[in-house]
Amino acid sequence: MADDIFKQFKEHSVAEFFKKNRQMLGFSGKVRSMTMIVHELVTNGLDATEEAGILPEIFVQVEELGEDHFRLTVKDNGPGIPKMHLGKALGQMLAGTKFHRYLQQRGQQGIGGSACTMFSYLTTGQPTKAISCHNGRKLTANIAIDFKANKPVIQEIEEAPTEETGLTVISEYKEVRYERSNYGVYEYLRRTALANPHCSITLVEPNNEKAVFPRSVETNPRRPFEIKPHPLGIGTHDLLEFAKHDKESRRLSSFLQETFARMSAGKVDELRTLLPNMDFNKKPQQMTWEEAEAMVKAFGQLRWIAPSMDSLVPIGKDQVEISFRNIFSPDVLVVTERAPKVYRGGIPFMVEVGIAYGGGVAAAGKKGEVMRFANRVPLLFDSGGCAITETIKTMDWKRYDLKEFEEEPVAVLVNLVSVHVPYTSAGKQAISNEEDMMDEIKFALMEASRGVQKYLSGKRKAHEIATKRKVVNRYVQQLAGDLSSLSGEKKSEIEKQLLDIIEKKYGEEGEGNGDEGNGEGGNGDEKAGEGEGVKKPAGKEEEGDIDE
Amino acid sequence: MADDIFKQFKEHSVAEFFKKNRQMLGFSGKVRSMTMIVHELVTNGLDATEEAGILPEIFVQVEELGEDHFRLTVKDNGPGIPKMHLGKALGQMLAGTKFHRYLQQRGQQGIGGSACTMFSYLTTGQPTKAISCHNGRKLTANIAIDFKANKPVIQEIEEAPTEETGLTVISEYKEVRYERSNYGVYEYLRRTALANPHCSITLVEPNNEKAVFPRSVETNPRRPFEIKPHPLGIGTHDLLEFAKHDKESRRLSSFLQETFARMSAGKVDELRTLLPNMDFNKKPQQMTWEEAEAMVKAFGQLRWIAPSMDSLVPIGKDQVEISFRNIFSPDVLVVTERAPKVYRGGIPFMVEVGIAYGGGVAAAGKKGEVMRFANRVPLLFDSGGCAITETIKTMDWKRYDLKEFEEEPVAVLVNLVSVHVPYTSAGKQAISNEEDMMDEIKFALMEASRGVQKYLSGKRKAHEIATKRKVVNRYVQQLAGDLSSLSGEKKSEIEKQLLDIIEKKYGEEGEGNGDEGNGEGGNGDEKAGEGEGVKKPAGKEEEGDIDE
Repeated sequence: MADDIFKQFKEHSVAEFFKKNRQMLGFSGKVRSMTMIVHELVTNGLDATEEAGILPEIFVQVEELGEDHFRLTVKDNGPGIPKMHLGKALGQMLAGTKFHRYLQQRGQQGIGGSACTMFSYLTTGQPTKAISCHNGRKLTANIAIDFKANKPVIQEIEEAPTEETGLTVISEYKEVRYERSNYGVYEYLRRTALANPHCSITLVEPNNEKAVFPRSVETNPRRPFEIKPHPLGIGTHDLLEFAKHDKESRRLSSFLQETFARMSAGKVDELRTLLPNMDFNKKPQQMTWEEAEAMVKAFGQLRWIAPSMDSLVPIGKDQVEISFRNIFSPDVLVVTERAPKVYRGGIPFMVEVGIAYGGGVAAAGKKGEVMRFANRVPLLFDSGGCAITETIKTMDWKRYDLKEFEEEPVAVLVNLVSVHVPYTSAGKQAISNEEDMMDEIKFALMEASRGVQKYLSGKRKAHEIATKRKVVNRYVQQLAGDLSSLSGEKKSEIEKQLLDIIEKKYGEEGEGNGDEGNGEGGNGDEKAGEGEGVKKPAGKEEEGDIDE
Repeated sequence: MADDIFKQFKEHSVAEFFKKNRQMLGFSGKVRSMTMIVHELVTNGLDATEEAGILPEIFVQVEELGEDHFRLTVKDNGPGIPKMHLGKALGQMLAGTKFHRYLQQRGQQGIGGSACTMFSYLTTGQPTKAISCHNGRKLTANIAIDFKANKPVIQEIEEAPTEETGLTVISEYKEVRYERSNYGVYEYLRRTALANPHCSITLVEPNNEKAVFPRSVETNPRRPFEIKPHPLGIGTHDLLEFAKHDKESRRLSSFLQETFARMSAGKVDELRTLLPNMDFNKKPQQMTWEEAEAMVKAFGQLRWIAPSMDSLVPIGKDQVEISFRNIFSPDVLVVTERAPKVYRGGIPFMVEVGIAYGGGVAAAGKKGEVMRFANRVPLLFDSGGCAITETIKTMDWKRYDLKEFEEEPVAVLVNLVSVHVPYTSAGKQAISNEEDMMDEIKFALMEASRGVQKYLSGKRKAHEIATKRKVVNRYVQQLAGDLSSLSGEKKSEIEKQLLDIIEKKYGEEGEGNGDEGNGEGGNGDEKAGEGEGVKKPAGKEEEGDIDE
C-alpha cells in the first residue's frame, strides 16, 4: 500500500508547475490576464531599451478576433535578442539576464516573457511569433514551450538583413478581455507613462482608436549601477555563498573589501577589533558557519555609510510633481523621497511618496486613491496583500487632519525602488510585508502627510479667522451706535476705530498662516503624542452656520 | 553593448528562485516563518497517514536554542518514506507524489518539505535530519539542497531494523519566533484539530508545556477517490494533452468515455449530434486544436451530472457543528454544505460554511471572526488577497440583519475543498480570486446567513412584541378607570377584559415567530430586492427607551 503511493513519486518542471498554477503568474480573470500579458511584455521592452541606452518607444496593439479572443502585438526599439537566446527568453522559465544581477530592474525573475508564451499556447494552441532585429539581422520565429522539459520549441521562419533594432512579440490569447477599467491595459499604460516620462507609448485599442502617451522628458533617467551588496542586511548564508564563489584565493580581509559596498580598509580594522580571534588572512572559502555568523553580528555593530543612491533610480521628486499636477492639479501636493535603506541580503531600496489633496482630485471624484509602483512599474492587482496598502491601513490619518482617508479627496502615489523587490508571488503585483520596507513606506507617508496637514491646518485656521471676523464685524454697527449715544462721540468715528482694531487683530493673524501649522517637528520617527495636529475647535460648525 | 547584456544570460533552478524569493513560500516575518514550517511538515504528515489508512498521530516539539533560534521536531505515524525517495522528498523542489494526481490532498506542489530544508539551511547552515521508518527499516539521514541543481544532498547516518513506521523531521531555524498569537503554531494546530477531528496532535511548547488536541472521532474520514476530470471546465489545451498522452490507440469515442467522468455512451451520442462533422472513430492523438475547441464548446452545451462527491471530503456538517459548539457554544449556529461544482480543467470543488452568532462568540469577544480553510488546512496568513475574505467583503450583510459584519458577535468558518486549490502563491495561504469559486463561497455564505437572519429576525420580532405589550399594559389601568367612570361598569371587570384582548393579540403574534422571518425564498441565486430582510421599524429605539 505505502509503496504503491511512492510509485507515483515524480519530478516536475517549473513550467509544468506554472501551467497548473497559472493564477500564481497573475493569469486569473479575463481582464487581469490581458493586463498581465501587456505588463510582462512592456516591462521587458523598457528594461531592454534602457539597458542599451535607447530612449524607449513602445507600441502596443490589441486586436479583437472573437469573443474573449485577441491578438496582441508589443514592439520595442531595444537592441533585440540574439538568435541563440531568443527561444529561451520567450520559451523557458527561469532563464534570462536579470535574475542574478544586483541591479534595479523591472523584471527580475526570467519568467514573465515565457509566461505569456505559455498562456497564449494554453488558450489558443498557437506559438508566439517573435521578430527580433539584432545586430543587423532580422529573425522571425515561432516559439512554444515543451512544458515537461521547460525548454523552448523554436521554429525559425525567416532571417534577413535589417537596419532596425528591437523586439516585436505577436501572440494570440483566449480567456482574456479588453476593458477601459481601472484594471485594464489603458490604465496600466497610463500609469506606466506617469512613472516613466522618458517613454513614448502608443496603444492601438481594439476599436482602432490610437492612444498616445508621449514622452515629456527627452533623456533616459541615469542608469542604475550594478552594485555590491551592503554589509547591513547580509545573512550568514549569503556571506558564505559569496566566500565560496570568490574566484581568487585571496585573504578574508581583501575578500570583504572587494565583495561589499562601504567596506573600507578602516572598516576591516574595526571588524578586527570586534573579532580578535578571527583570522583575517585565511582564505574566504575556509570560513566556517560560526565564523560567518560572528562576522554578520559584527557587521551589525558598526556604523556604515548608507548604500549608494547610484544603484537606485526613483521617479524623482520633480517628475512626480509634474506628473501629479498634470493629472490632478491638486490644491496641495507634497512629494517625499527617503534616503536608501537596506533589507535582508544587503539589498538597497528606497521609497518615494507623493500626496495630492483637493482641487482636481476632488473634481475627478477620487477619494483615498492609491497608486502603487515598484521600480516604476504600476501594480494594479492584489492590493489586499501588498505592503503599500497594508501600511496605508496602519496610518493614523486623523493625526494629519485626514480623518477618513477613504472619504478624503486625496491621491497617494507610492513607488518602492529596489535592487530586489520581494513580491508575494511570481505575478509581481504585490510587495511582501517585509518589516524594513513597511517602516520606510510609513515614514515616507508620514513625512508627506505632515506637508498636507500643514496646508490643511493653515487653510482651516484662515477659514476660522475669516468666520470670526465676519461675526465681529456684524456687531460693530450696533456697538458703535451704543457707544456713540453713551459717550457722545461720533458714531462713524467709533466705527472706524473699532474696524481698525479688528483689522489689526485678524489681519495679522491671518497673514502667513498658510505656512505655519502644527505637527512640524517630526523627523521621520513618529512618537506617540508628537505632532498631534490641530484639533477642530469646538463650536466651529455653529459659527460657520451663522454666516454662510 | 547589447551583446554584453546577453553574456549575462543564464538559466536558474527553481530552488535558486525560491531561495531568492523565500517570501513567496511564506517565509517572511519571524512568527509567520515558524508557523509556515509547522504547516508544511504537519500537512505532509496528515496526507501520508490518511493515504495509508492510518489514524494520524502528530507530534510537534518546539525547542528554544537561543534568541530567534529554535529546533523543531515533527513526527508522524505514517508509512515513512522509502530510501530511494527520502532525499528528493525533503531536498528537491517540485518532486513528490502529489503534483500530478487528481485527488484532494493538503499538499499539491512537491515544494513544502524541501522549502523547510531550504529555510533551515539558509538560516543555520545545518542540514535537516530525517528519520524514516518504512517497511521494517529505520533510516536516519541528513539532507540539504544543492540549490544550483535543485537536487538533494543526502548523508546517510544509520540504518537499522524497526517495527515502527513513520517519518520524523528534526531541523533548526533562526529568524523565527514562537508566539501564542493568532498567527502562531498553537493557533495553527488548534484550527487543524478543529477541521480534522480524527487527528491526535501533541504540541510541546518551548516552555515544555504540553498541549494535546485529542481526536474526537475514532475513524479516518472516507478517502477521497482519485477521479477523472469532469467535462465541464476542461479547456482545449487540457483535452489535447489528455488525447496526446492516451496510451492505447483507441477511437476518439472510447477515449472520451475512459478519460472523463460522467461521460457515458449516451453522452458521446449527444456529442455526435452536436458535432456532425467530427470523426469519432479517429485516433485521439489526431485531434486538431480546432476539433478539440469544438468539442469543448459542445461539452458546454450538454447537461451533465455534477461531479461525484467521492473525490471531495469536506469536514462535514455534523463535525463543523460539533467543533463550533465546542469552541463557542453560540446562540445560533448554521452550517451549509454546497453541492460540488467544477472550475477550469474540470476540477471539482465544493464549499462548506458555518456561521456562529452570539452566546460564546460574544463572550469570547470575537467580532466578525473569519476562519479560512482549504482542504481542511487552516489558512492563517494573506487574508487580504484571499477569495474567501474578498467574498465576505462583497456580502451585503445588512440583508441578513448583520449590519456591520466586523462589529457583530459572529464567527464564520469557510472550508473550500478541491482536487486542486488555486493558491495565490507557493506559500499556500490564500486562494486566488477565481470567479467560479467566489460564486460558490458567496452562495454558501448566503445560505448560512439566511439561517442566522431567521433566528435574528425571530428574536427581534419577539422583542418588539414584548415591548409593545408592556407599553399597552401600562395604559390599561388608566383606561379601565376612565371607562369605568364613563360607563359605570366595574373597573376590575373592564381591566380583565382589556388584558384578555391584549393577551389574545400579542400572545398569538409572539408564538412561532422564532421560526419565521423574511428572506427565506432565496435559492442560492441572489437577485436585487429579493429577500431584503426585515428593516427595523422606525421609532423602535424610542419605544425601547421608555420601558428599559
